[in-house]
Amino acid sequence: MAEYAKQLVKEEVTILPEGNVVTPKGFTAGGVHCGIRKSKLDFGWIYSQVPAATAGVYTTNAFQAAPLKVTQESISTGCKIQALLVNSGVANACTGEQGLNDAYEMRKWGAEAFGVLESHTAVASTGLIGELLPMEKIKQGIDQIHQQENNHVSRFERAILTTDTREKGTAVQIEIEGKTIAIGGAAKGSGMIHPNMATMLSFITTDADVDASALSAALKNITNKSFNMITVDGDTSTNDMVLAMANGTAGNSPLDEDHPEWHLFEKGLAIVCENLAKEIARDGEGATKLVEVHVTGAETDQAAQAISKSVISSNLVKTAIHGADANWGRLITAIGYSGQPVNPDKVSISIGSVKVVNEGMPVAFDEAEAKSHLMQDTVIIFADMGAGSGEAIAWGCDLSYDYVRINASYRT
Amino acid sequence: MAEYAKQLVKEEVTILPEGNVVTPKGFTAGGVHCGIRKSKLDFGWIYSQVPAATAGVYTTNAFQAAPLKVTQESISTGCKIQALLVNSGVANACTGEQGLNDAYEMRKWGAEAFGVLESHTAVASTGLIGELLPMEKIKQGIDQIHQQENNHVSRFERAILTTDTREKGTAVQIEIEGKTIAIGGAAKGSGMIHPNMATMLSFITTDADVDASALSAALKNITNKSFNMITVDGDTSTNDMVLAMANGTAGNSPLDEDHPEWHLFEKGLAIVCENLAKEIARDGEGATKLVEVHVTGAETDQAAQAISKSVISSNLVKTAIHGADANWGRLITAIGYSGQPVNPDKVSISIGSVKVVNEGMPVAFDEAEAKSHLMQDTVIIFADMGAGSGEAIAWGCDLSYDYVRINASYRT
Repeated sequence: MAEYAKQLVKEEVTILPEGNVVTPKGFTAGGVHCGIRKSKLDFGWIYSQVPAATAGVYTTNAFQAAPLKVTQESISTGCKIQALLVNSGVANACTGEQGLNDAYEMRKWGAEAFGVLESHTAVASTGLIGELLPMEKIKQGIDQIHQQENNHVSRFERAILTTDTREKGTAVQIEIEGKTIAIGGAAKGSGMIHPNMATMLSFITTDADVDASALSAALKNITNKSFNMITVDGDTSTNDMVLAMANGTAGNSPLDEDHPEWHLFEKGLAIVCENLAKEIARDGEGATKLVEVHVTGAETDQAAQAISKSVISSNLVKTAIHGADANWGRLITAIGYSGQPVNPDKVSISIGSVKVVNEGMPVAFDEAEAKSHLMQDTVIIFADMGAGSGEAIAWGCDLSYDYVRINASYRT
Repeated sequence: MAEYAKQLVKEEVTILPEGNVVTPKGFTAGGVHCGIRKSKLDFGWIYSQVPAATAGVYTTNAFQAAPLKVTQESISTGCKIQALLVNSGVANACTGEQGLNDAYEMRKWGAEAFGVLESHTAVASTGLIGELLPMEKIKQGIDQIHQQENNHVSRFERAILTTDTREKGTAVQIEIEGKTIAIGGAAKGSGMIHPNMATMLSFITTDADVDASALSAALKNITNKSFNMITVDGDTSTNDMVLAMANGTAGNSPLDEDHPEWHLFEKGLAIVCENLAKEIARDGEGATKLVEVHVTGAETDQAAQAISKSVISSNLVKTAIHGADANWGRLITAIGYSGQPVNPDKVSISIGSVKVVNEGMPVAFDEAEAKSHLMQDTVIIFADMGAGSGEAIAWGCDLSYDYVRINASYRT
C-alpha cells in the first residue's frame, strides 16, 4: 500500500537529477569569498525577478540569532521576499543589540545592491556563535554580487556550507493547469542538527504562484515530517531556518488548499524537503552513512515519530551502525526509553531485510547478512510496534571517530 | 549559604576513604570468575547476617530485564533481602519466558547456597541484551561462593563491572543515638547511562536499623538528585537498579522520618549516592574527565535540573570539553533548547572561575586560563539563569574517540 502510494507520487512528480534553487524560472543565485572564512566561499545570495510569496520556519532555541529576527520582520511585513543574503563562518548569535543592528545593516546593503525593498530582503547566518559579523567583509561580499562570474548556483550552494562536505541541491517538476512548475531547494547542515526544527539553513524556491498563507501551512506541516525528523547530534542550533519562496512566474492561477491540484504541489514540496533532509543527515559531521528508521504499528503517528527519533538519536545505536554491528539490543533499548507506550512482547525489528526480533524475542539470524546490510551507504531499520497504525520515518547517521575529531577542535 | 550547608554536612558525616559495601557491620561480599566473560570476574554476591530492610529503584525502560522483575517480587514480599547475586556479561533482557525462568532459577540456587528464603534473595544481571543466561556457568559461580578466598569486597566490586575501567566503592560514617552507623555502596556504570533512572547497578548497605518505607522514600528522592542527574550517553538501560539494604546490626532504634536524627541518615545516604554517581560519570565509556554542570537562578529546581541535563547531554558540549575548547556557544545553545523558560539576556556562564558570558553577552576572557581549567580531571560549568532560586547539579563526562571505539565493536 505504501509502495503503491510512492509509485503514484513518482508518476506525478518528476525528480530532476541536476535540479537546484534556480531550476524554477525567475531565480538566480551566486556566491563569493568575502574573507570571513580562510579560503572557502562564505557569502551567497538568491534573487527573484519579482517579489516572491515567502513562508518561513525558525529554530525553537530560546537563543534565536539576530538574522532570524530581522528575516521574520521582513516576512511579516508583506509575506514577500525578493532577495536573500547568507553568510557562513559567523552565526551572529548571542551578539545583543550590536548583532541586531548588524543584521539590519546587512539587510539594508543587500536591498540596495539588488534595488529591492528592505522588507523584501531576508538575511541568514551560520557559523560560530558569539562573534560579531565582520561588517567590512560582508560589504565586500555584497560588492561582488553583480560580477558576472559569481552568479552560479553551485557557488551559492557552496557559500552556505560550514563543516558540510558537499553541496546539497534538489528539484522536482510537476504540471498544474497544464503548466510546468518547478520546486527547487538548497541546504546546509552538518552539526547541531536535531528534530524540533530542522536546524540548518534550507532555502526552497518555486515558480508556482502560491498563496502565502497556504504556503506557510504546507511548509510547517512538511517540515515536521522531513527536517524535524532528522538528527545528527541532538543539538538544536540558534540559527535554523527554512524559507520557501514562490515567485509565480510559471503563470498558474494562485494555489491554495482549495485548488484541485494543490495536493500535487504539496507532494512536490514534500519530496524536495525530504531529499534535502536526507542529504543533511547523510552529510552529518563525521557520517559515513545515512540511517533511516521506519516505525510502523505504533498507537499514533506522534508515537511513531517519538520512537523513531529515540532510535535515530541514540549514540549507542549510531556507534553500533558505524561498526556495522547488528547489536539489536540497543535498538530495543532506545525504543524502550522513548517515553511512548510500548508492549515489549509485540515489537518486531529488522535490519534491512534481516529480521532480528520477532514479537519481543530474539530471532536466530545470519550475522553476515545483517553485517552486509550495515556496510551499505544507506542503512534501514524497520521497527513494528504491533499496536496500531501509526507510522513515521526518521533519518540520521552513524557516529564516528571523525565526529569527535571535528568537534573537539572546531573553534581552535 | 550553600557552602555553609556543605560544611555542616562534612562535620556530621565522615567520609571513609577506603569504605565500601562491607564497611557496615554484618555484611560480606565476594566475587568469582564463572566463565560468562573470557577471563574477568563475572559473578558476585553480597550477604547480610540477618535479613535487611531493602528498598529498590528500577529502570523506566519499557523493556525491563527479567532479574529486575524477580527482585521486585522478592522485595514486595516482605521488604527484606539477605542475599544478592549479580552476574556480568549477559543482561538477561529480552529473553521472554525462558529468561524469567532462568532469573527465578538463579534466585533459587542463590537462596539455597546461603540458606536463606527465596523471597529474601535478589538477583541482578548486566551485559549483552537478548542472550539467555548460561545457567551452567551461573551454577559454577554459585558453587564457588563458600570458598574462603573468594570473599573479598574488591572481588565483588570487580565482578559487577562491564566496560568500566575501575571498581567503584564508597562509605560514610555517622553517629545516631551515640551509636556508630556506616553506609556503604558499590556501583557499575560505563555505558547506557542517562537520567531517568540512573542506569547501572548500584548497591547500598547500612548497618542502621531503618524502616523499609522510609528507606524507600529516601532512596527515591536521593536517586533523583544523584543517579538520575548523571549521563554518559543518553541511553537508559533495561537493567538499571539501585538497591539499599539496612540490616539493623548497629542496634539503633528504627529510623524513619520522625526520628530526630533522620536528617543525618538521609545526608549520609545522599553522600554515598552522589559519590557513586560521580564515579560512574567519571568512568563513563571513553571518558577522560568528570564534568559537573551547576545551574543556579532558574525559575524552579525542576527547570534547573532540565537545563543542567540538557547541557551535560550535548554531544557538542562533550566533544568541546574533550578538546579543552572553551566553546561557550555550545553551552548557550544547549541551555536554549532545554525546553525550559530562559531569558537569553539574563544568562551568565563561567567555565571554572572564568566568566565567558555575562547576562547574555560574550565576555572578553583569557582563553589560556579557560583552557587550563578544561584540561583538569574535573571540569565545572556554572550557568546562572538570573530568573529565580532554582538550582541543580548534573554530572557527566567528555565524548572521546575511545567512546566510539568501544561502542563500534562492543559485541563483536
